[in-house]
Amino acid sequence: MSDWPQHIHLHEEGPREGFQIEPLPIATADKVRFIEALADTGLADVQAVSFVNPKRVPGMADAEAVAQAITRRPGVRYTATWLNLRGLERALQTPLDVHGSLQISASESFSQRNTGKDTAQTLQEQRLVLDFCRARGMPIKSAIVMTAFGCNLEGAIAPARVVERVEQLQALLAEYDMPLPYLRLADTVGWAHPNGVAAVVGAVRERWPDLTLGLHLHDTRGTAMANALMGLSLGVNHFDSSCAGLGGCPFAGHQGAAGNICTEDLVFMCEEMGIATGVDLDALIACAHMAEDIVGHPLPGKVMRGGSLSRFR
Amino acid sequence: MSDWPQHIHLHEEGPREGFQIEPLPIATADKVRFIEALADTGLADVQAVSFVNPKRVPGMADAEAVAQAITRRPGVRYTATWLNLRGLERALQTPLDVHGSLQISASESFSQRNTGKDTAQTLQEQRLVLDFCRARGMPIKSAIVMTAFGCNLEGAIAPARVVERVEQLQALLAEYDMPLPYLRLADTVGWAHPNGVAAVVGAVRERWPDLTLGLHLHDTRGTAMANALMGLSLGVNHFDSSCAGLGGCPFAGHQGAAGNICTEDLVFMCEEMGIATGVDLDALIACAHMAEDIVGHPLPGKVMRGGSLSRFR
Repeated sequence: MSDWPQHIHLHEEGPREGFQIEPLPIATADKVRFIEALADTGLADVQAVSFVNPKRVPGMADAEAVAQAITRRPGVRYTATWLNLRGLERALQTPLDVHGSLQISASESFSQRNTGKDTAQTLQEQRLVLDFCRARGMPIKSAIVMTAFGCNLEGAIAPARVVERVEQLQALLAEYDMPLPYLRLADTVGWAHPNGVAAVVGAVRERWPDLTLGLHLHDTRGTAMANALMGLSLGVNHFDSSCAGLGGCPFAGHQGAAGNICTEDLVFMCEEMGIATGVDLDALIACAHMAEDIVGHPLPGKVMRGGSLSRFR
Repeated sequence: MSDWPQHIHLHEEGPREGFQIEPLPIATADKVRFIEALADTGLADVQAVSFVNPKRVPGMADAEAVAQAITRRPGVRYTATWLNLRGLERALQTPLDVHGSLQISASESFSQRNTGKDTAQTLQEQRLVLDFCRARGMPIKSAIVMTAFGCNLEGAIAPARVVERVEQLQALLAEYDMPLPYLRLADTVGWAHPNGVAAVVGAVRERWPDLTLGLHLHDTRGTAMANALMGLSLGVNHFDSSCAGLGGCPFAGHQGAAGNICTEDLVFMCEEMGIATGVDLDALIACAHMAEDIVGHPLPGKVMRGGSLSRFR
């Protein structure tokens, strides 16, 4: 384990991951103050909202209102997600930092269940995104492969399948003469284990040695921190994460939506290991408590309860 | 990361770690049925109780009653902890599998706070234990170094300090012509990070290459699984753990007593990685739910909520 990065880049997804699944409505003003507080901790990328069907995801019906209300901190990128061209068009009407991105599932069954599209249809949708981006001179800055480690419908996913999906995206990008600078590998439903992380990262690296890789790790089965450690040991230095472990509440039946890896737990571990995060851990812990106050139930983060070590040093 | 063990040995500490800190009394019968259920999962070592001052730890006042009531499963060892000779004497009056063991803290300040004894007095206490064991022909089967990675009173603990403490214990054992077959390194208050685990394991290994090492990892700051992964990558194959993460309740103010690494989460990760545990994961998950029913509040285990992957395969 000697390929540790010197610093990591975190993409904070708590406001989007967390607030979109809460059963009770969260006030727009609460979302905004949480996003602003996160941006004050040193986090450079904060995902604010998702532009999705408000009938399917009522918790994100105020996405535009949130996006408009944020007082922006210079140097911070406020990002958003969207599932299709319609969502992207909505996102572009806001002041958020929207860039072109592609998405695909390693598991075809998951894709059909999640978006109603099989792989061929998903690739067609990505073509529409590419047309749209090219017409506006928007570069494609990232792609994500969901269910890259396993899926409740298809079981374990072979690393070769992930490579195949990335090849499909790369072939599409080549048609548009666009490069892919950044690829995220997502453990969407909590199947990843450290050897699996090593296998998928290794397979993708072997094929595209210069492609920057990021990990999106859900903690459904308690392995997120160990999976992140394996990623770190291989030099992976981009991680999605979620303040307080927002995005899954193990205490309210959100079993299928367990939270992303907890940002402040990951920051704690990295900083203790000498891997810089650029984040003020104590300020981030205060955000985690704010998140718990806002959602009104316990969240799974650990260091928010154990506390940082700064008071002992 | 190539030194993975083929199988690991787990020492289940949930009944002792968990029930001793619960604010409300737990019925003796509930403790017994939980211990018996754990022993039915394939766990070979289950720590049932601690023999400590009932005025200080009222949750363990029924230790003798629990020990007497357990219907023993052949092949399972039912263990106990004790802090001093008086506790050891009590333990030996029960049918539990009591063996000689030594204990010391790396942090002298923690030792004084926890037991009222400094290092010299602790060593004197260990001498009494050695006298006692020798007189009864009981071998010393293990030793533990507490606060081996850090301490709220003294901060980070240098690996050399851990080596010094083990040398002190080894010197004492040499006087009695007794070997030390097994050493546990405890992250008692949640200071360990993966590099720290590697440093301490490495320092002890360098000095005593043939000594079997175990890790006792608290998840105070969310790093227990990552710390275990680092231990596994170094070939460590003995772990203390706690069903459902019993031993700390992050939701009831037990901040200083955060739980041990969660047994079923560790079992899940190891089995997925091809490291055998000998444990039936689904049976263990059922125990975790039983534990939550018994204590009456949420416990921090993850796979008990996410579920095993057996139903998807």
